[in-house]
Amino acid sequence: MPSRRQLANAIRALSMDAVQKANSGHPGAPMGMADIAEVLWNDYLKHNPANPKWADRDRFVMSNGHGSMLVYSLLHLSGYNLPMDEIKQFRQFHSQTPGHPEYGYTEGVETTTGPLGQGITNAVGMALAEKALAAHFNRPGHEVVDHHTYVFLGDGCLMEGISHEACSLAGTLGLGKLIAFYDDNGISIDGEVEGWFTDNTPKRFEAYGWHVVADVDGHDADAVKAAIEAARAVTDKPSIICCKTVIGWGSPNKQGKEECHGAALGEAEVALVRETIDWPHAPFEIPEEIYAGWSAKDKGGRAEQDWETRFAAYSQANPELAAEFKRRMAGDLPADWVEKAQAYIAETINKGETIASRKASQNAIGGFAPALPELLGGSADLAGSNLTLWKGSKGISKQDGDGNYVFYGVREFGMAAIMNGIALHGGFIPYGGTFLIFSDYARNGIRMSALMKQRILYVMTHDSIGLGEDGPTHQPIEQVASLRLIPNLNVWRPCDAVETAVAWRCGIERTDGPSLFSLSRQNLPHQARSDEQQQNIARGGYVLHDSDGTPDVILMATGSEVGICMEAAQQLETKGRKVRVVSMPCLDVFESQDASYRESVLPKSVRKRLAVEAGVTNGWARYVGFEGAVIGMDRFGESAPGGELMKHFGFTADNVVSQAESLLA
Amino acid sequence: MPSRRQLANAIRALSMDAVQKANSGHPGAPMGMADIAEVLWNDYLKHNPANPKWADRDRFVMSNGHGSMLVYSLLHLSGYNLPMDEIKQFRQFHSQTPGHPEYGYTEGVETTTGPLGQGITNAVGMALAEKALAAHFNRPGHEVVDHHTYVFLGDGCLMEGISHEACSLAGTLGLGKLIAFYDDNGISIDGEVEGWFTDNTPKRFEAYGWHVVADVDGHDADAVKAAIEAARAVTDKPSIICCKTVIGWGSPNKQGKEECHGAALGEAEVALVRETIDWPHAPFEIPEEIYAGWSAKDKGGRAEQDWETRFAAYSQANPELAAEFKRRMAGDLPADWVEKAQAYIAETINKGETIASRKASQNAIGGFAPALPELLGGSADLAGSNLTLWKGSKGISKQDGDGNYVFYGVREFGMAAIMNGIALHGGFIPYGGTFLIFSDYARNGIRMSALMKQRILYVMTHDSIGLGEDGPTHQPIEQVASLRLIPNLNVWRPCDAVETAVAWRCGIERTDGPSLFSLSRQNLPHQARSDEQQQNIARGGYVLHDSDGTPDVILMATGSEVGICMEAAQQLETKGRKVRVVSMPCLDVFESQDASYRESVLPKSVRKRLAVEAGVTNGWARYVGFEGAVIGMDRFGESAPGGELMKHFGFTADNVVSQAESLLA
Repeated sequence: MPSRRQLANAIRALSMDAVQKANSGHPGAPMGMADIAEVLWNDYLKHNPANPKWADRDRFVMSNGHGSMLVYSLLHLSGYNLPMDEIKQFRQFHSQTPGHPEYGYTEGVETTTGPLGQGITNAVGMALAEKALAAHFNRPGHEVVDHHTYVFLGDGCLMEGISHEACSLAGTLGLGKLIAFYDDNGISIDGEVEGWFTDNTPKRFEAYGWHVVADVDGHDADAVKAAIEAARAVTDKPSIICCKTVIGWGSPNKQGKEECHGAALGEAEVALVRETIDWPHAPFEIPEEIYAGWSAKDKGGRAEQDWETRFAAYSQANPELAAEFKRRMAGDLPADWVEKAQAYIAETINKGETIASRKASQNAIGGFAPALPELLGGSADLAGSNLTLWKGSKGISKQDGDGNYVFYGVREFGMAAIMNGIALHGGFIPYGGTFLIFSDYARNGIRMSALMKQRILYVMTHDSIGLGEDGPTHQPIEQVASLRLIPNLNVWRPCDAVETAVAWRCGIERTDGPSLFSLSRQNLPHQARSDEQQQNIARGGYVLHDSDGTPDVILMATGSEVGICMEAAQQLETKGRKVRVVSMPCLDVFESQDASYRESVLPKSVRKRLAVEAGVTNGWARYVGFEGAVIGMDRFGESAPGGELMKHFGFTADNVVSQAESLLA
Repeated sequence: MPSRRQLANAIRALSMDAVQKANSGHPGAPMGMADIAEVLWNDYLKHNPANPKWADRDRFVMSNGHGSMLVYSLLHLSGYNLPMDEIKQFRQFHSQTPGHPEYGYTEGVETTTGPLGQGITNAVGMALAEKALAAHFNRPGHEVVDHHTYVFLGDGCLMEGISHEACSLAGTLGLGKLIAFYDDNGISIDGEVEGWFTDNTPKRFEAYGWHVVADVDGHDADAVKAAIEAARAVTDKPSIICCKTVIGWGSPNKQGKEECHGAALGEAEVALVRETIDWPHAPFEIPEEIYAGWSAKDKGGRAEQDWETRFAAYSQANPELAAEFKRRMAGDLPADWVEKAQAYIAETINKGETIASRKASQNAIGGFAPALPELLGGSADLAGSNLTLWKGSKGISKQDGDGNYVFYGVREFGMAAIMNGIALHGGFIPYGGTFLIFSDYARNGIRMSALMKQRILYVMTHDSIGLGEDGPTHQPIEQVASLRLIPNLNVWRPCDAVETAVAWRCGIERTDGPSLFSLSRQNLPHQARSDEQQQNIARGGYVLHDSDGTPDVILMATGSEVGICMEAAQQLETKGRKVRVVSMPCLDVFESQDASYRESVLPKSVRKRLAVEAGVTNGWARYVGFEGAVIGMDRFGESAPGGELMKHFGFTADNVVSQAESLLA
């Protein structure tokens, strides 16, 4: 039987060979963390390679995602559907082995990592989801939700600010089934970290309320095993195991140096590694006994079978809960969802309230959430401003995981990446709020939601200079336009309570990506709509008001500027102009409509077009062309009451009228 | 003589009255931190209200910027040019008292704060600048640079990830003259922080290598004074003084509660505060003896005079150094700058190298830096990838502050906000690098550079799918377009070494805002230019290649796609087409050119226009209109060799030819 070291060396060989073949990649981390990974995967990780989606599997996250060959090696060796041909295609087009682990590309990859610090934060989200699901669904004698989240991370992750946000909150929430392994190799891209990273990491994590297992030799399997035992024994705090390792372990000339971090070792050094670690096999050749030592198929199959048996008993005792658990883990909406959603929207139409869209958003949450227990809310310390709480909200705490709301604290980026982890785990549809301006802080987390196609709802309020006195640091100018540029993110800027409710419904029903709601602080007037107009809100853009015959001018707007355009249309009509008003709550969705619908809303023949939005003008040219115009603002805001600012910067019906007349002159 | 408490109560009264009058703002923090501020400003702060720009003044930063009335109160009371009428205009249009402290609006405000965590990070930059200038300019017996940076911060700042990045690095660099005051009031917007923030903050800061003064009663002037003494006595570590305070101190019904954080107290409660703190004076009425107790005019004038005397002695002993210090603090470029810059650009033209623009950027740094000792470089742990080091680079360390390079570690947002602090301090032109994709992490810091009009240079490399195998997490798609949306940020995407050198020169010469360079990993061919074309690079867009007579089609591109368009033009010309190629290295600068120049580059009459950029298409519509087209990509990238990806996604001369022919068909 192969030794543990020999098993670990299979990772080293695959990693260095794949990187060498691609002549691109990162051999250092996989070679340095191979011994740790071997102990974790062979002795502890609960998983079934035959079913990477088993609900109660342990989650494994490699936060230092550049070491992707470690993950691919583990998946391949333990028996996942990742054949050697794919390993040989490392970093090539259309392979299952992209440069960084990409969710959806490779079975068994739990999240996309690479942007440092986000993997550990996703892991916090996964552990939080597990805690909340366990508290909600488990019953005495029936522990159907009971798994760990293991995460590898390096110096880079620990330097990133988001690691502070995530780990601080994980400590507060006492996520006892989260176990992190810190690859303390003393090297980052610029060299030996002592020049720029001198944190006492154990002390830092103690300050967060974590259980710290310090000073573990990451190349001593017994020491690693003892550390994991210690970590698993502490169940009321997350654990971090600080492993001293040698980056590129096994490379006689490059180990312990930055040289092996992010480049192929070179043919000569690869040959020397083979000698050094006594690995005589050809590249991509793994002896049968090594495969046998790694295979998790039998053990994993048995583990899942055991769980299935226990779940059957649970189902018998709690049939409704069991069905609900399955539904939620499948991501299906409740059977009566459509009916209830329509009822709430009908109610909103009937009420016809003039309220802020942030308030309309809170109403929508309150309207939809009773039918949707998977809605897991939160805000980055702005609950009362974002209006993310509803009467059924219950906070999740260290003591009580059975809640539906997370008080994220002032941690916007952390919130986004935690929500990614929650959504990836399954069982929840997370939503989280902050001021729209602070989407900047969370931006790459929002991008990752979009890249991973996760159903996440961003509640972003105070969406223009209309917020008033807080001034330029708090006034979004370029945020709506710049969020629209993120592929696969739907950005909604609704003009009234009805559009807000529809936006929420669309976001909830969307299964292939995140939605973001840009919401006003100030009141917005209700707009009357025909049934057809009402239906068309979900198409992202529609004719809200029309003229008889071909319009002289099309006014188009979003959010708080739609009401202004409706007023302007009235004024222009009294002057004999034919005016169409187009409300465009979601340009992303509008763009995905067929050409004939888009033409019906914005006919090519009408070239006098005026777009109005309280933000940067760029982005509207594609709708107004050379002959149209945009009322917007390409400068920062000012501190003053919101109404004054809107007037000063030209977001008034009078100015829309005057600009429209200029176009028509 | 008024007591310390009475002096502090003047802050409380002004703050609550100003917020009440505006019916908007944050009374809680000023009322809670008034006693601390009183001790710091009256007993320690070295400043001269008559000269807010005195080079050797202490810097004071309120990182919890929503408590702006504390700052305005301090400035008004101590004698700055901030009359009571301005206090009365708190949060009103055109006042000097905007909702958050805004750099450039109010004399004595050292930086714009409000986005949490950035103020403390700016302060780290200021302290770093002080350390570096002191090490470089001071001489034995001549301590002309010797001041502290004091910063107030709250729970929100400490929850933000950026506080980790900044404070970790501050510890590593041993910024002994940085002294932070933590307003530990246990309250954030969502209520009592214990539900979401349970860090042991003293322990956390000890882990960073800070000197911690824990458990100080923030309402006991003697305790605060003792703490400041202790902090100033430790000179090799930054200090944090953890002050227990009561938010809204003095408000009988609201103190200690979230209620007083971000809203006016109400007339009734304001009246009760007056009774409680024994402040019988009318709103905005400050007794003369209170003014007398606060005035820093005499003491400040003497302090500056003393420094002037010492500086005169220094000048006599070290005339060149003294002149250089003055030049650098004034932000003036060296007298021979233009000549040397032109010489380097001429050399670059002569060489005509085909190199990556990241390499061209490194060459430009190496070309300009010897003439420009104020260039203070750095990278977020990607020096070897961003190519931010040059042969004269010398790292700043705890032991040795006399350097010109900061190893920022993996701290992109921290780097941006530290550079803001460095630039605000004066004496340096900071530049810092990371991968363009991670501009997302730093985004709000970049925005703050633009908002504060600071000369900062962002070196952002690996700027498209052309970077290859690292895949979608590392490939910018929407970043260039979205950075262009930030007002007052100049985004350069140069097409060859010459444009790169010009971009650098423009960035260095620009005095009213930041510039960002989007640079390729892959080689870009040199383009030949006439003198006029060469001159026009600095106009942001220009005709790089032209046809005889009116062109049939205009190809416009940036960066790596310019070379492709030049090839395509050749092919199209062999087919008899008249082609103009427009290189647009900086759309922001191009937009600021006069209409006739823009018309000369992009004549309205030529409507067949094709824009080519390896990123999102939106943003180009304003140049191509309804009759043109864009070759771009509105989806995430893939992991594969860069050349393959460029081909797959259509960034080839052949595809440009084919799309151009479609337009002309």
